[in-house]
Amino acid sequence: MTVEIICVGTELLLGNIVNTNAAYLAGKCAGLGLSCYHQQVVGDNAQRLEDAIRLAISRSDIVILSGGLGPTEDDLTKETAARCMGRELVMDEECRKKIDSYFKKRGMEATENNWKQAMVPEGGIVLDNPNGTAPGLLLKGEQAHLILLPGPPLELVPMFEESVAPYLNALGLGVIYSQTVKLCGISESEAETLIRDLVDGQANPTVATYAKTGEVHIRVTARAENEKEAKKLLKPLVKELKTRFGSYIYSTEEDVTLERAVVDLLIANKLSVTCAESCTGGRLSARLINVPGVSEAYKCGYVTYSNKAKRKILGVKKSTLQKYGAVSKQTAEEMAKGAARQAKADVAVAVTGLAGPDGGTQEKPVGLVYISCCVKGKVTVKEYHFSGSREKIRESSTSAALALARRCMLEYFSKVTFGKE
Amino acid sequence: MTVEIICVGTELLLGNIVNTNAAYLAGKCAGLGLSCYHQQVVGDNAQRLEDAIRLAISRSDIVILSGGLGPTEDDLTKETAARCMGRELVMDEECRKKIDSYFKKRGMEATENNWKQAMVPEGGIVLDNPNGTAPGLLLKGEQAHLILLPGPPLELVPMFEESVAPYLNALGLGVIYSQTVKLCGISESEAETLIRDLVDGQANPTVATYAKTGEVHIRVTARAENEKEAKKLLKPLVKELKTRFGSYIYSTEEDVTLERAVVDLLIANKLSVTCAESCTGGRLSARLINVPGVSEAYKCGYVTYSNKAKRKILGVKKSTLQKYGAVSKQTAEEMAKGAARQAKADVAVAVTGLAGPDGGTQEKPVGLVYISCCVKGKVTVKEYHFSGSREKIRESSTSAALALARRCMLEYFSKVTFGKE
Repeated sequence: MTVEIICVGTELLLGNIVNTNAAYLAGKCAGLGLSCYHQQVVGDNAQRLEDAIRLAISRSDIVILSGGLGPTEDDLTKETAARCMGRELVMDEECRKKIDSYFKKRGMEATENNWKQAMVPEGGIVLDNPNGTAPGLLLKGEQAHLILLPGPPLELVPMFEESVAPYLNALGLGVIYSQTVKLCGISESEAETLIRDLVDGQANPTVATYAKTGEVHIRVTARAENEKEAKKLLKPLVKELKTRFGSYIYSTEEDVTLERAVVDLLIANKLSVTCAESCTGGRLSARLINVPGVSEAYKCGYVTYSNKAKRKILGVKKSTLQKYGAVSKQTAEEMAKGAARQAKADVAVAVTGLAGPDGGTQEKPVGLVYISCCVKGKVTVKEYHFSGSREKIRESSTSAALALARRCMLEYFSKVTFGKE
Repeated sequence: MTVEIICVGTELLLGNIVNTNAAYLAGKCAGLGLSCYHQQVVGDNAQRLEDAIRLAISRSDIVILSGGLGPTEDDLTKETAARCMGRELVMDEECRKKIDSYFKKRGMEATENNWKQAMVPEGGIVLDNPNGTAPGLLLKGEQAHLILLPGPPLELVPMFEESVAPYLNALGLGVIYSQTVKLCGISESEAETLIRDLVDGQANPTVATYAKTGEVHIRVTARAENEKEAKKLLKPLVKELKTRFGSYIYSTEEDVTLERAVVDLLIANKLSVTCAESCTGGRLSARLINVPGVSEAYKCGYVTYSNKAKRKILGVKKSTLQKYGAVSKQTAEEMAKGAARQAKADVAVAVTGLAGPDGGTQEKPVGLVYISCCVKGKVTVKEYHFSGSREKIRESSTSAALALARRCMLEYFSKVTFGKE
């Protein structure tokens, strides 16, 4: 079966935003066993949108549209899709109630244009949007299935996962099943070298590596009649990867992030954790607090951006700051120790570095970062050299801090040893 | 004049890469005064590529293709474009020499398929590629101009800047110039209601609203002979928007984010700031520390996730937590006051709320968030109801905290008053 993706939005045609929706949808559809031969982008123009939809229907079995479902005048996707399919728009009572309660909950009145969002093409299946007011839609026609999704990725992605993927799966396309082996503390090229033979000899299943900030994901994919068969194909391959990468693997579960792996390890060992952050400025704490249930392990953290804050809050010695500077092994070590003491935490992670764009010197260039981790009094400090923008350096530092925390805990509690990092 | 962008590549259809070329080319073309109504993505398939080019030629004056110019068998763009334009491929001597010297310089021999890259459609203008072996091409036909560019952004971007932009400029197209008016503390539908007349009556310049988490952007766009004329057209419109939205506007500059606007305001008023975060868990500090130069205003911040941390670090009263709970107006107020006192900061922003997914009750549902801002001892607390995932609620809370901080500072220092929020 073929799928075609149409992204609607003038901001795409003007180049104001990058079309991440198309990449996301294309990747997901490939994973579901659909062949995608065409993508289109059109603006909020009724005639051109209609032409695009009619063209897509004429050559593809499934047409996914994103964008143009909002409450404003120039949101035309639903009306145009209905016209292409020869359907009338009718008020959906369920939808109307949801919009009403969405605004009531916020102590606001829905404006007239919000009600437009409750109008649905006859025979359409409404897809719930827990992250916004614009519901999605499924329209099964004679020639093609039309799937309408909202434009904002934070709304589109959950709607695809929860409603569209199961719908497409039920069409019985055969499956392409993937599993991800997630590594940290190893570079992409190192990881690739270790599995070159598996990547080269690939047919079914296939093996591919993807670099993420501070992580490497190895994706194994099998094509089979059903999920059970696909899993059977993947099993020996995943086992082989586990043998090759050992403790570098932090998870093989889709929904386990690096921060979740760290929090799971903390909770399993009944440990409390704190963070002392300079250049990351709260990102490390924020990543940990992404994890539901983190309150069992995380009580408090410190953003100590100035030298004075490092001294007053964490007890970093004035002499250390003067002699070695704020971005130094010594300061990182005292930050972690101080944070552990102050928060009475079993584990403390501290980050200090130069995120730029200014402030670098020959000796201490932008991108130099020290991360330390104190586990029950035992401190490890590592030096890192990251590159890229201020944001990229801060994000790399945050991921490296999570990877180091995981490693230090494993070494302390499980007597696991790591290769060179 | 209209332009259409066709990106060629199976990796785009599989979702392996994000189509940054389309965004780049679209932005550049808009800046050059071209109207882009269509973008297409097709794979390395001769028939589908031919259909795509023929469709584009039939409806657009200029067609830009990226990708498929490489030396391998499945690179088909040049051959297909030549066929669509009815041209033969001939060996370009200049090209052949360049490829030869490219490989000689690297001490390598050009392989047979490299010579394919020196074949050029009759009448085509070869565009130099200093960053790779695949030259670009300009083909002027009766119906349309065809422009062929290599796929790798590091080759495409310099070639566009150096060769294509001057070529397009020489066609005398005029410019399309945009400006963004950025608002916070107002919903998209409210904002749209206030400018319905401007959106409806649009021709040149045009007005459109875009929702971002916690913000609304209004984009005004004018078409004119040159940038100066375009700016002249936009001026009265931007002035009108400033009158209608007043203090809700935090910037009209492309590169000013909400956090940057807050930091600018802090620095302009010589104020120091601190944050006390529960559910946002460091995100608010991290957003502020996104801004280079923030160290002038930001010294330290606190992530007080547990009740005990709220008491010990911020001095929130035990009785307050017992009587009203951690997620309450009263706790938020004491958090801000305590943080200001502890950090000796002029401004303190505190966030406490239920980010979910669990822990909500009938009385205090997931999404309930209190944000308080203390400016020189004067505390404002607001109640918010956000929805969506844990991540969405935390991101909405962070943006709302920045908006509230901005508002409280403006009200305190500039005696600015806001409408209902």
